Amino acid sequence: MKASPIIVAIDGPVLGSCQGLVKIMTDLGDEVVGFKVGIPFIIQCGLESLAAARSRIRNGLLIADLKLADIGDIMVRVVSLVKDYVDAVIAHSFVGYKGALDKVSEKLKEWNIKLILVASMSHEGSRELYDRNLDSIMDVVKKANPWGVVAPATRPDIISLVRNALGADVKILAPGVGTQGARPGDAICAGADYEIIGRSITESPDPKKAVELIALEQEEALMRCRR
Amino acid sequence: MKASPIIVAIDGPVLGSCQGLVKIMTDLGDEVVGFKVGIPFIIQCGLESLAAARSRIRNGLLIADLKLADIGDIMVRVVSLVKDYVDAVIAHSFVGYKGALDKVSEKLKEWNIKLILVASMSHEGSRELYDRNLDSIMDVVKKANPWGVVAPATRPDIISLVRNALGADVKILAPGVGTQGARPGDAICAGADYEIIGRSITESPDPKKAVELIALEQEEALMRCRR
Repeated sequence: MKASPIIVAIDGPVLGSCQGLVKIMTDLGDEVVGFKVGIPFIIQCGLESLAAARSRIRNGLLIADLKLADIGDIMVRVVSLVKDYVDAVIAHSFVGYKGALDKVSEKLKEWNIKLILVASMSHEGSRELYDRNLDSIMDVVKKANPWGVVAPATRPDIISLVRNALGADVKILAPGVGTQGARPGDAICAGADYEIIGRSITESPDPKKAVELIALEQEEALMRCRR
Repeated sequence: MKASPIIVAIDGPVLGSCQGLVKIMTDLGDEVVGFKVGIPFIIQCGLESLAAARSRIRNGLLIADLKLADIGDIMVRVVSLVKDYVDAVIAHSFVGYKGALDKVSEKLKEWNIKLILVASMSHEGSRELYDRNLDSIMDVVKKANPWGVVAPATRPDIISLVRNALGADVKILAPGVGTQGARPGDAICAGADYEIIGRSITESPDPKKAVELIALEQEEALMRCRR
């Protein structure tokens, strides 16, 4: 079975426990493209839970959503703490290249970890600065040469602009689906590769069923938009 | 004795151990204005070390330098994990107000925790986006109404602009002193309230002596610039 273009956001135990979240990742490891583990999970559950998730996910990507936004040395130091457990980390573009993403980009290459950069965010306030600077942000992204970028499912026009600016080789991950308002499939129709979905899956009584239903919605949306 | 206008950056154990860093905070608790504890410390040393620091610092401010840069709900969730141990948290202005800093600002008021916003950063790349958007950043800061902001000791002109924009009531914390190049006192001369200093103190064989020498340099600089 082909994994659905879903990345499950694991933001820390609200319902359930750390073990419960590791179990969700274990159970869905073959159904989805990967998992995005946030700072609340890392602080609350500790690196040992991240290591447990790593050892139980066979195929899925494990992404540390650190939302890194510091000077280069500190970002590298934070990544060094999780580098043995994850395939990719997320950093912000707005910290710029020199003395920041240049160092991260270089170190991640050495460690064979994928870099994912935030190009825009899913909430309304992202229009205030991120979207108004999209051209400069794209310049920073091109210099740092990441594996993927984050662009909001809640604003498909931004996804299209990012796709046009970066071409087909960069993966686009789109958050904001479900609780935040975007419908499954909309971001992919606009040019994203994967949709990031959290609470609709992790807080469902049956996460596997939730994934199946969302995957179905994605396929239906794709059939409509690619007609 | 009056505490020196120094905030010690505690970025995680490079030399020494977590206990060693808690000891530094304990020993310097009356000598400096406060401590800025970074994500590496929180991940490596855990919340128990933060709690230990809290219980041993009598007068100094304890600031969680989370460099928050996410949607509001996630930022609030991260702060909820440290709220019992710290006096203040640092968040980025670049994420904007709506759906981000509005929620954080409201929740911190409820929890009686000070908000500190990044207005600009100490590295070169901060010119690429942060500084070019200083006017919009100041608008976001004014809406979020923080206790303090971060502005770079490495670029005193930015500190002066931020001071002019925000007036005398907002505290300005300036990183970049020491290893990153700015001299003690320069940022305060430009309008900052406190200088953030990390490795020159934490990696010194005698942190207390290092603080004394830096405080002396600050005083000398102040005598020169206020002449």
